[in-house]
Amino acid sequence: MSKTLLATPEDAEQAFYEAFNRGDLDALMSVWSEDDDPVCIHPGGSRFTGLAAIRESWKQLFETGMKFRVRTSNVVRAQSALLAVHSLLQHVHVEGDDTLAPPLITTNVYVRGASGWQLMMHHTSPSPDASGLLTQESPRVVH
Amino acid sequence: MSKTLLATPEDAEQAFYEAFNRGDLDALMSVWSEDDDPVCIHPGGSRFTGLAAIRESWKQLFETGMKFRVRTSNVVRAQSALLAVHSLLQHVHVEGDDTLAPPLITTNVYVRGASGWQLMMHHTSPSPDASGLLTQESPRVVH
Repeated sequence: MSKTLLATPEDAEQAFYEAFNRGDLDALMSVWSEDDDPVCIHPGGSRFTGLAAIRESWKQLFETGMKFRVRTSNVVRAQSALLAVHSLLQHVHVEGDDTLAPPLITTNVYVRGASGWQLMMHHTSPSPDASGLLTQESPRVVH
Repeated sequence: MSKTLLATPEDAEQAFYEAFNRGDLDALMSVWSEDDDPVCIHPGGSRFTGLAAIRESWKQLFETGMKFRVRTSNVVRAQSALLAVHSLLQHVHVEGDDTLAPPLITTNVYVRGASGWQLMMHHTSPSPDASGLLTQESPRVVH
């Protein structure tokens, strides 16, 4: 499969979430790095390593028929020449479900390879509730 | 507070988990980067940014009086000259609690600064159950 050159980590992130919103499995998988051992953790889920397991997990998600509208906010970045990390909040709305869900918390790791920046790790987890994200003075700790 | 020079990301990771095991707040906080905007997500918890909020969250955890025995396994690494990312499983045993808890899933991000490698992001989240970590053929997806 041919890959689009993703010139920056932000380009890779945009391509990833656009594919997520379209439910486009091939486009979503094309953002992932093929050179490294990629890691994907869905909210509350197991850790999948390797493209085959990661592809299967997204295939199953898209096969539910749910239509997602995903946006991101509050990005905190760390970047070097070959590696970039984005910590962000991921707001997922499922079409037909008007429940106001708290944002998910995501760490995305991008690596710069021959075909530009590619996703190497996607770690998403649930947050306790929307208000919890604003109460840094009285943190909840359930470690 | 004086900082020990942490020569590699592995040294920083070891210092972090040793401090966690000792319940030593000052030692644990000394591993964190002071130069960047650090991020800490406890399992199921909110995202804390900044050293003050992160310190307070660990202070509250250690003040519970719980004694932790933490070990890590299955580390997947990505590293460049100035940035390193470790995806790993974090096995936490609480002294006096013989429940066999599933491992947590953690992404640790280290940055290389003036005083060696320092922790910049710690994202830990619960996994569904121990068996779930082994069933990559039939992934659970709850995105």
